[in-house]
Amino acid sequence: MATRPRNSTARTRAELHPRFRILHRSQVALGPGKIDLLERIEATGSIGEAAAGMSMSYMRAWTLIRVMNASFRDPVVSTERGGRLGGGAQLTETGRAVVAAYRDLERRSLAATTTPWRRLQALLK
Amino acid sequence: MATRPRNSTARTRAELHPRFRILHRSQVALGPGKIDLLERIEATGSIGEAAAGMSMSYMRAWTLIRVMNASFRDPVVSTERGGRLGGGAQLTETGRAVVAAYRDLERRSLAATTTPWRRLQALLK
Repeated sequence: MATRPRNSTARTRAELHPRFRILHRSQVALGPGKIDLLERIEATGSIGEAAAGMSMSYMRAWTLIRVMNASFRDPVVSTERGGRLGGGAQLTETGRAVVAAYRDLERRSLAATTTPWRRLQALLK
Repeated sequence: MATRPRNSTARTRAELHPRFRILHRSQVALGPGKIDLLERIEATGSIGEAAAGMSMSYMRAWTLIRVMNASFRDPVVSTERGGRLGGGAQLTETGRAVVAAYRDLERRSLAATTTPWRRLQALLK
């Protein structure tokens, strides 16, 4: 009689949720929400659209951007007045490097933790 | 003239705060708080003392233990009535295995993310 594998995610339906925050001078310089915002700005070219996609106010998005711009050596977002839609926004070279490093950090963590994660899954109902 | 290394934590004073949560059947089966509680129970042999050390009510500690006991195949904490201090508590074999796997997961993640973390530190002020 076949038994189902004890370690499968399908069996336990358990999910591992890692979250990485970077604290810098008493502020959260970076976390999942800020990275999400940066990626949406990159995709849409607009702070307003990026914010709307996260059900976040334009003001709130700007606050997050200000914290990041103050935390990193160079700004992470650059904006331009005028333009086709009345001013666009895009990631700077630093902004793109920050997103890439953060996502790389997540990927490496995930790849490195397979063994203990399977061990935990086997202990779950 | 000597310059300080750009990647040192001393320079940026930035801190990476990873947090791992395990979701299981719509509940947080495990997270940093629950692991802290289990380790304190192991150290003190008392749910009350463990809870007090975290400025947590006895009731709250029991709620967390109930969630864990319901999530894992076997209970993570066992209690005994009577005893020297009117009833002690200790981790079960499963409880100890859960703590060990979670801490191992954290350690492996930390070790695996050195490179992107240094890259982020170099971008910070």
